[in-house]
Amino acid sequence: MMSTPTAGPPGPGTGRRRGRRPGGADTRAALLAAAREVFAEQGYSGATVRAIARRAGVDAAMVNHWFGGKETLFAEAVLRLPFEVEPLVAHLRSGPAGQLGARMARAFLTSWDAEGGTRFTALVRSVATHADAGSSLRDFFLENLFGRISDLVAEDGRELRATLVASQVMGLGMVRYVVHFEPLASAGVDGLVAAVGPNIQRYLTGRLD
Amino acid sequence: MMSTPTAGPPGPGTGRRRGRRPGGADTRAALLAAAREVFAEQGYSGATVRAIARRAGVDAAMVNHWFGGKETLFAEAVLRLPFEVEPLVAHLRSGPAGQLGARMARAFLTSWDAEGGTRFTALVRSVATHADAGSSLRDFFLENLFGRISDLVAEDGRELRATLVASQVMGLGMVRYVVHFEPLASAGVDGLVAAVGPNIQRYLTGRLD
Repeated sequence: MMSTPTAGPPGPGTGRRRGRRPGGADTRAALLAAAREVFAEQGYSGATVRAIARRAGVDAAMVNHWFGGKETLFAEAVLRLPFEVEPLVAHLRSGPAGQLGARMARAFLTSWDAEGGTRFTALVRSVATHADAGSSLRDFFLENLFGRISDLVAEDGRELRATLVASQVMGLGMVRYVVHFEPLASAGVDGLVAAVGPNIQRYLTGRLD
Repeated sequence: MMSTPTAGPPGPGTGRRRGRRPGGADTRAALLAAAREVFAEQGYSGATVRAIARRAGVDAAMVNHWFGGKETLFAEAVLRLPFEVEPLVAHLRSGPAGQLGARMARAFLTSWDAEGGTRFTALVRSVATHADAGSSLRDFFLENLFGRISDLVAEDGRELRATLVASQVMGLGMVRYVVHFEPLASAGVDGLVAAVGPNIQRYLTGRLD
């Protein structure tokens, strides 16, 4: 039934979903995978519910059934990190506070790399063509993620620091997955974490004026 | 004749073009301004020569006459910085080498701000939807610009350093002009240069491993 298999490189947190699943969960997973592809190809505005359902090999009514509509499907498929927020926050909070920037760089690179950059590309195409996508991304990044590690961030200019971190993380994704500037696009994760981590750390806890 | 006036905030280097110009230069300028708008709205693939000419209020044949086609018009209208490369390179090379990162941050922010972010948004929409646009951008940034200040960059991993700088500069534009994360989107240039400049400087001359 599904033209898009739900396999592919497993990301953090997906392991527990392995094995035989009921048909409903298969449909939901197929819609998420198809949505990421179609949003990456068409952007938010160009992607239709019908095209996503067709790619997943299911009836368009399933989108409303599982997600209520295109907006929620977009949030689930593209804006969410490819792992749950709770384990990510726990991971970021573990280890030395002075290495938080490095842990953030590694978490984003590892999760995006695991999907070949498709999710990041879908995100950029969508935010570039759809203002609401930018708002959803901001809510997700600043509130759901950054809001929960804010005690690890210097108190002065905390909001600006969060958006500066966003600038480095988004730019890293742009160069690696969208415009493919070498050698960064093919560089190993360890080397990139060593290069980028301290810069993120300065935005988190360094002196900025 | 022109639906898009060529006025707007003057950027560095545009002053000498003020005053009465022959009709041909007006047509060319009108096409450049119209192209930036249409590429920003539609991306590279969606923007047609006909739509750009219509926006400029001129015949579509003028695009071929002045630019030879859509590809060159795109390069001239979107990829080029809103000032000549020579003065930019001269500016970057002036002043203390340890402040090169700050001068780069200020140069990009000032020129993009002067056009309200339109050119940067056009760039992102285009590279997100058109692989060739990414290649053109890489050639421009890495060869025309970075290649001419490479003696100011640390010798180890010079290519990686250039792409790391690109990641910070592109991410800054993404957050300020495309997804509009506050407070970065409205922050003053001086504060941003102080925050971002040292991070770019570390990519240029700092220790990365």
